[in-house]
Amino acid sequence: MKNQAYRMTMLFDFYGELLTDRQKEFFDLYYNEDLSLAEIGENYGISRQGVRDVIVRAEGIMTEIEDKTGLIKRFHLMQKQLAAASENMARIIAINDSKYYDRELDHLAREVKETIEQMKQE
Amino acid sequence: MKNQAYRMTMLFDFYGELLTDRQKEFFDLYYNEDLSLAEIGENYGISRQGVRDVIVRAEGIMTEIEDKTGLIKRFHLMQKQLAAASENMARIIAINDSKYYDRELDHLAREVKETIEQMKQE
Repeated sequence: MKNQAYRMTMLFDFYGELLTDRQKEFFDLYYNEDLSLAEIGENYGISRQGVRDVIVRAEGIMTEIEDKTGLIKRFHLMQKQLAAASENMARIIAINDSKYYDRELDHLAREVKETIEQMKQE
Repeated sequence: MKNQAYRMTMLFDFYGELLTDRQKEFFDLYYNEDLSLAEIGENYGISRQGVRDVIVRAEGIMTEIEDKTGLIKRFHLMQKQLAAASENMARIIAINDSKYYDRELDHLAREVKETIEQMKQE
């Protein structure tokens, strides 16, 4: 399951709060804390398979929500657009730096670039 | 209920696909097609109150999801940032238009502005 870690992290970031406490806990231990199914099972006094069932169920719930809403997909499209815009802003700043030294333009462009970088974190 | 139309439209846009067909249908007729509860009830052969219950339940489900995930809130923050960035880009284009006539800078800036406008629609 761990080969899908990035997808799982995104699902958990968007929809994790819709899970039960136990689902959240196991999901977090498995994907973020990198414990094995057996280790989690030992800590909670249940079988490896029991832990697996909880995590698979949590994945299923979140995957279904994403399939229906497409919000992560929408978010990813925005991220791509932001990356392209960020490159353009860097180029605009560089052109101004090398040719015009316009302070207002520089200030505005850096502000936009910073906003874009912030949005890429969100 | 209709005084919350904007909030409802946002909820429906984000989470509408998580509703049942009937919830979606009634919600759409009430908020988007602007039918009254009584009119919807007549069309479906159920009471005004029955329609109201379905819509209130749908609102409750979507409000709960938003309270937990905060995705619309996150989206709104991005929209504000985009609006500010768009103004800066307009100013950058204007400065270049009035002083430097740099074609590459103009092209890059317009491209960023257009991307921002697109993202405001998404």
